[in-house]
Amino acid sequence: MSTTKPLILITNDDGITAPGIRALVTAMKAIGDVVVVAPDKPQSGMGHAITINSTLRLYEVKQDGLTEHACSGTPVDCVKIAIDKILPRKPDLLVSGINHGANSSINVIYSGTMSAAVEGAIEGIPSIGFSLCNYSIEADFTAAAHFAGIIAKNVLDHGMPDGVCLNVNIPDVPLDIIKGVKVCRQAKSMWHEEFDERKDPYGRKYYWLTGKFVNLDSGDDTDQWALENNYVSVVPTQFDLTAHTAIKDMKKWEM
Amino acid sequence: MSTTKPLILITNDDGITAPGIRALVTAMKAIGDVVVVAPDKPQSGMGHAITINSTLRLYEVKQDGLTEHACSGTPVDCVKIAIDKILPRKPDLLVSGINHGANSSINVIYSGTMSAAVEGAIEGIPSIGFSLCNYSIEADFTAAAHFAGIIAKNVLDHGMPDGVCLNVNIPDVPLDIIKGVKVCRQAKSMWHEEFDERKDPYGRKYYWLTGKFVNLDSGDDTDQWALENNYVSVVPTQFDLTAHTAIKDMKKWEM
Repeated sequence: MSTTKPLILITNDDGITAPGIRALVTAMKAIGDVVVVAPDKPQSGMGHAITINSTLRLYEVKQDGLTEHACSGTPVDCVKIAIDKILPRKPDLLVSGINHGANSSINVIYSGTMSAAVEGAIEGIPSIGFSLCNYSIEADFTAAAHFAGIIAKNVLDHGMPDGVCLNVNIPDVPLDIIKGVKVCRQAKSMWHEEFDERKDPYGRKYYWLTGKFVNLDSGDDTDQWALENNYVSVVPTQFDLTAHTAIKDMKKWEM
Repeated sequence: MSTTKPLILITNDDGITAPGIRALVTAMKAIGDVVVVAPDKPQSGMGHAITINSTLRLYEVKQDGLTEHACSGTPVDCVKIAIDKILPRKPDLLVSGINHGANSSINVIYSGTMSAAVEGAIEGIPSIGFSLCNYSIEADFTAAAHFAGIIAKNVLDHGMPDGVCLNVNIPDVPLDIIKGVKVCRQAKSMWHEEFDERKDPYGRKYYWLTGKFVNLDSGDDTDQWALENNYVSVVPTQFDLTAHTAIKDMKKWEM
């Protein structure tokens, strides 16, 4: 590998063959030397899960002129095993995605794509998760890949604050309709769950998790607002979950 | 059920038969009407994973004089299905644990126990995750159950700030050695991963995820400090991951 180009670790949660990661690999090859370590199957909704009760496998996959690495574990497992077993040195950048589907607002919590980026931040690597607001396997990643390049270059130039990574979402509209990039906060929102109850051929109940997304936030400084108004949303995202403002009040409790 | 007692949802990540959740059930029965919905098998390290690519099952389990509910999914699935399919109304309190092993500092991110509590907070339920700093199945939960009762009563009395739950860890020492309860912040820390590489009987490599915990924080206001000094640690924990202080600086980037 060249010693002058940045070393970029690429992962995702949709699996190593997903169109989203292929678009990201192409975009990152224009910027640096890439190493791909991604799940061997879809791992959506895995959050920050790690594999501790079973074992992991690694397989080499040759595609796009690269020897890539498929891992049997979660997105966070991929980051950890890449650092310990695959990368020649700590990478200059970690990018995750491009996810098929939005990871804005509360979805950051459930997202394997973003958990990989958060794990990168924990490890001290400048890290970005990219998601396109379109779940389809046929989605057009042109605009998303364009902004992935711009934002990745900015992170390489500026670095990232300690303990912070970026949650980038791209609206599902053509490049010329996108108005620009907005740095914003995570919108307050939730999923109102609606389990779909069915019966198997033996008469026993089973359930599919489904839900309705509820935006509880009317602010115009949120990622939801940005996306609804055709901006790319960039939320600086941290793994210090302490609610610092609550500490003072709670010190009055009698415990 | 009585209408005057608080309704308490209990879950965990070690599974519905783990000694830790049994101790928590006993402690909560003294305070309110309990409903138990917990994983049917160990789900440690599942973080905020949800089950979207497969189906869920629910089974009734009769133990400790209760009809409880075992779920085939993750801790977060348990909270979601309890709300939609099992509970008669929104509960007054959600408690998760008592986990076999610490969930202090960065472990909050990987913890199924804490993700169940965070999911409760997202749903607007006052929620607490409890963890004992001892991984053993034989651990003594006496002190942990004692403090679970005290802290649960405090949360029922005071309520919780919007968007916040509690991460409570109990040191593994007898009750009379514990010096009290400290409200603190999440210590900056990480796991330095060390994959244990082995070969299967067919000569193919596989890996176990292991690691060394590294405390990067010398503050005396952290959960790690509290636990090392025989205090129960209580960290108010939020699901707004926005790094608010980073927003201003990033607005200067050229994107």
